[in-house]
Amino acid sequence: MMTPRFGPVWIDIPFDVQSSTLLRREWRVPRIEKPSVNSSEICKIVDALAHSKRPLILCGHGVRLSRADSHFQQVIRRLQVPVSASWSAIDVVNSDYGIFVGRWGLYGQRAANFIVQSADLLVVFGSRLAIPQVGYDFSQFAREAKIIVVDIEPCKHPVYLQIVGDCKDVLEGLLNQRLSSWTDTSGWLAHCRGLLDKYPTVEKAHEVDKHVNSYQFIQELSKHLSSDHIVVTDMGTALLSGHQAIQLKQKQKMFTSLGLGEMGYGLPGALGAAFACPDKEVLCLNCDGGIMMNIQELHTIIEHGLNVKIVIFNNDGYLMIKHTQKMLFKGRYVQVDKKTGVGLPDFSKVLPAFGYKYFKATGLDDRNRSVIRDFLADAQPSVLEVFMDAEQPFVPKVKGIALPDGKIKPAPLEDMYPLIPIDALQKALLVRCTKSSADAIRCD
Amino acid sequence: MMTPRFGPVWIDIPFDVQSSTLLRREWRVPRIEKPSVNSSEICKIVDALAHSKRPLILCGHGVRLSRADSHFQQVIRRLQVPVSASWSAIDVVNSDYGIFVGRWGLYGQRAANFIVQSADLLVVFGSRLAIPQVGYDFSQFAREAKIIVVDIEPCKHPVYLQIVGDCKDVLEGLLNQRLSSWTDTSGWLAHCRGLLDKYPTVEKAHEVDKHVNSYQFIQELSKHLSSDHIVVTDMGTALLSGHQAIQLKQKQKMFTSLGLGEMGYGLPGALGAAFACPDKEVLCLNCDGGIMMNIQELHTIIEHGLNVKIVIFNNDGYLMIKHTQKMLFKGRYVQVDKKTGVGLPDFSKVLPAFGYKYFKATGLDDRNRSVIRDFLADAQPSVLEVFMDAEQPFVPKVKGIALPDGKIKPAPLEDMYPLIPIDALQKALLVRCTKSSADAIRCD
Repeated sequence: MMTPRFGPVWIDIPFDVQSSTLLRREWRVPRIEKPSVNSSEICKIVDALAHSKRPLILCGHGVRLSRADSHFQQVIRRLQVPVSASWSAIDVVNSDYGIFVGRWGLYGQRAANFIVQSADLLVVFGSRLAIPQVGYDFSQFAREAKIIVVDIEPCKHPVYLQIVGDCKDVLEGLLNQRLSSWTDTSGWLAHCRGLLDKYPTVEKAHEVDKHVNSYQFIQELSKHLSSDHIVVTDMGTALLSGHQAIQLKQKQKMFTSLGLGEMGYGLPGALGAAFACPDKEVLCLNCDGGIMMNIQELHTIIEHGLNVKIVIFNNDGYLMIKHTQKMLFKGRYVQVDKKTGVGLPDFSKVLPAFGYKYFKATGLDDRNRSVIRDFLADAQPSVLEVFMDAEQPFVPKVKGIALPDGKIKPAPLEDMYPLIPIDALQKALLVRCTKSSADAIRCD
Repeated sequence: MMTPRFGPVWIDIPFDVQSSTLLRREWRVPRIEKPSVNSSEICKIVDALAHSKRPLILCGHGVRLSRADSHFQQVIRRLQVPVSASWSAIDVVNSDYGIFVGRWGLYGQRAANFIVQSADLLVVFGSRLAIPQVGYDFSQFAREAKIIVVDIEPCKHPVYLQIVGDCKDVLEGLLNQRLSSWTDTSGWLAHCRGLLDKYPTVEKAHEVDKHVNSYQFIQELSKHLSSDHIVVTDMGTALLSGHQAIQLKQKQKMFTSLGLGEMGYGLPGALGAAFACPDKEVLCLNCDGGIMMNIQELHTIIEHGLNVKIVIFNNDGYLMIKHTQKMLFKGRYVQVDKKTGVGLPDFSKVLPAFGYKYFKATGLDDRNRSVIRDFLADAQPSVLEVFMDAEQPFVPKVKGIALPDGKIKPAPLEDMYPLIPIDALQKALLVRCTKSSADAIRCD
C-alpha cells in the first residue's frame, strides 16, 4: 500500500524472486491519492489569523517533504506572523528571517518556548507535535492557544482544527487568498523581540573559564560557514548544541537522524551528503564517543575524495549518558568515560593516519578563532578536535521540576533548566504560569 | 520455555518493568528436563560398531555444549575408530589424535571427505548435519553408511538411528560398556592413512610464485602457536584457510561465528576471549575487508591492555564475494575491491596510530618466517599484515559440477574442486562414484 506520507521504504525481495527471470514489462507507479483540501478549511485558517492577537506559525519537516519550502517562505513573508521551527525543519526557515523566534521544544530555545506558550493561535505546518515538541503533558502546551494543524496524517492530539492534507496545497490555498483586515499584533511582535533580546540562545549558563563551551563554539562556527554549507550532525553534543545554537543562512542545509537518534550517524550521513552534492562543502559535527561507531567511514571519505570536514567534540566519552546517569542514578557512572571503561583513542594520531589534517581548539580566544578559520579554509580533508568540559551541561532544557513535597512533575515547555526566578518567568509569559512552576523549588 | 539445547538467549525487559521496584525474592531456575537415554540405544551403537568394517565417528559442537570433551576423548581412544570433526568442533579433537582424519564438509579437507563418503557406519555426536556438513543432496551423503545421530534435538534427515539426548549421557553409557569382539578394521585404517598421505591439506593448488598463499601461511603459523593459544577468526580468508589448514594441538582453542558468518566478528570475538582468559594469548585472524566493520575495537584492545595479536590478510577487498561474482555473474565485479569502490586504508599507518607494532609478510621464505616468529614473540600489541594474491582461490571446495549438456549438478561431498581425474577419485572411494562425477567435465 502506498500512503501520501513520504519517507524511506524497506523493500524485501525473497531469494526465489531474486533469482527468477522476469519479462520486461511496462510498469506504472500507481498514482498516490492525496487527501484533498477544500477552500473552507483555508478560510478557517485565514479567519483565525485575522482574529488572533498573538499568532505564531510552527514549521515542521512536512513542509520540506511536501516540497513547499518556497511556498512557506512566501506565506510567512506575506503574513508577517512570527515563526518557530522544529529541529527537523531547522533549515526551512532561516535564522535571519525577520520574525523568526528560534526553535521550540524540550531542547528548544528559551525565548521560542516563551513565545509558543504565550500565543493565542498556533498554525502548525507539517509537524505531528511529538513529545520533543510539546513535552509530556499536552494540556500544558500552548494552553491558551487555538491550535490548527496541517499535516498529511491526522494529529493524535485534540486540537481546534485539523487539516489532513498536503502542506503545499494548503500553502498554495493561502497564497490565493486576500489577506487583510488583521487585528493589530504590534504589541505581540514587540514582546517577541524583547524576549529574543533578553534571552539569547547562548546564555549565562554557557560561560566557561577554561575549555570550550560547545554552544559558544557553534555560535562562533556559524559565522564562518560558507553560504551553502551542508551541516550533518551525529548525536550528543553535536546534536544538541548543534541544533540549539547554530545560526543558519539561506541556502545552508542541516540534517541528522532525529527519529532514531543513533550514535554513529554523523560520518555516513555526511558522506552521503557529499556524494549527493559534490560541489558543496559538508561539515560533520561529531563527538569522540559517537564517531567511534562508524570510524571506518573516515576512510570512505578519503577514498572517494569527498569534501567533508569533521568537528570532533572531545568530552571524554558519552556526555548525554553521563547526564542521564546523573539524573536517574545519582551520578554513579557506568561505561560512560575513561574511568568507567570507555576510553577513546588519540584522535591527533588516528585521524592523520587515515589522511586528515589535524587541528584543535582548546578555547575561543583570538588564536583559537583563527584555528577555526584555518580549519574551514584548508583545502585538505581535515578535522578539528574541540576540547570541552567533560561534564558540560546541555542547557536550556525542559526536565521534571522538583516540588517541595519531594515529587517530580513534568515541567511545562516555558520552564526550562536552569530555572529562572518566578517573577521573570511570569513576565516573559503572557499567560499564567502553571501551579507546578509557582510551587517549584528554584535555586536563585 | 527452557529447552535442553544450550545457547545465547535474548531477554527483552519492557520499560515499565525496568523502572518498577521489585521485592527481593528467592527464585529457583527451573530444572531443565533432558530427554533420557536408555541402555538399549547405547547397545545399538555398540552393536553397529562391532559389525562395521568401515566405521567413522563425526564430532559436532554439541559435544562441547554438553561439556563432554573429555568423555569424547576417552571414547575415541578406547574405540580406536577414525574421527572427523566439523568446524564448530574444530578444537574438540586435536589434529594430532592418531586416527583424526581431518574436517569434513563443503569446505572440508579432501581426504576427510573421501573417508566420510566411503564409510559403512557414521556415528555422529552433537551435529545437526546442516548443509555445510552434508551438501545440498542428502541422498549423496555417506550413501552406503548406516548413520546414527546423537543430538539434543531430532535430526531432520532420514537416518538409520536417531538418539535424541545429551551427548554426555550417551558417551558415559558407551564408557560403561565392554567394547570387544570387533570386526577387523585394519584395512580401513590403512586406507584412511593412505588418503591422508596422498591428499594433504595444503595441496598443489595452494602453491604460489609470489605473494603468500593463505593456506600455506596458516600451516606455517600453526607451528609457532603456543600450546594453549586461542584463535578467533573473522570471515572470508581468515575463516576458510583458518579452518581448513590449521593444525590444533591439545589445549588450543579456536572459534568464530559460524551460524551467521558476519564480517566484523573477529575483533570483538577476540577481545571477548581475552577478557575471559586474561592469561592466555589470543590470536585474531582477520582480513582487510572484514576488519573495517568493527575497526573501533582496535582501540578497545589497547585501552584494556588485552593480550590480542592480529593477522590481517590483505586481499584487496572482499575476496569471497569476488568469487561469488565470478561464479554467478561472470566476474563482473561490483563493490568488491579498490577498482570497484571498496578501497581500504593503509594499515601500516592506521594500526600504529592505534598503538600496534606493525609487521608484514610478503612471502614464506626464511626472512618472512622469522617475521612471523618475531610477530608472535613480540611483547607489544602487534599486527601482522599478510599480502596475498587478490584473486586467490579458496580450495578445495565442493561446488556444482558442469556436465557436458551444460547443466550444473550439485556435487557429492567427495568431488571437490579442483576436480581430480576420475580414476583417482574412484580409487580414493570405497563406494561407487556418482553418475554426475563420472559424467563431469574434468580439466585434467
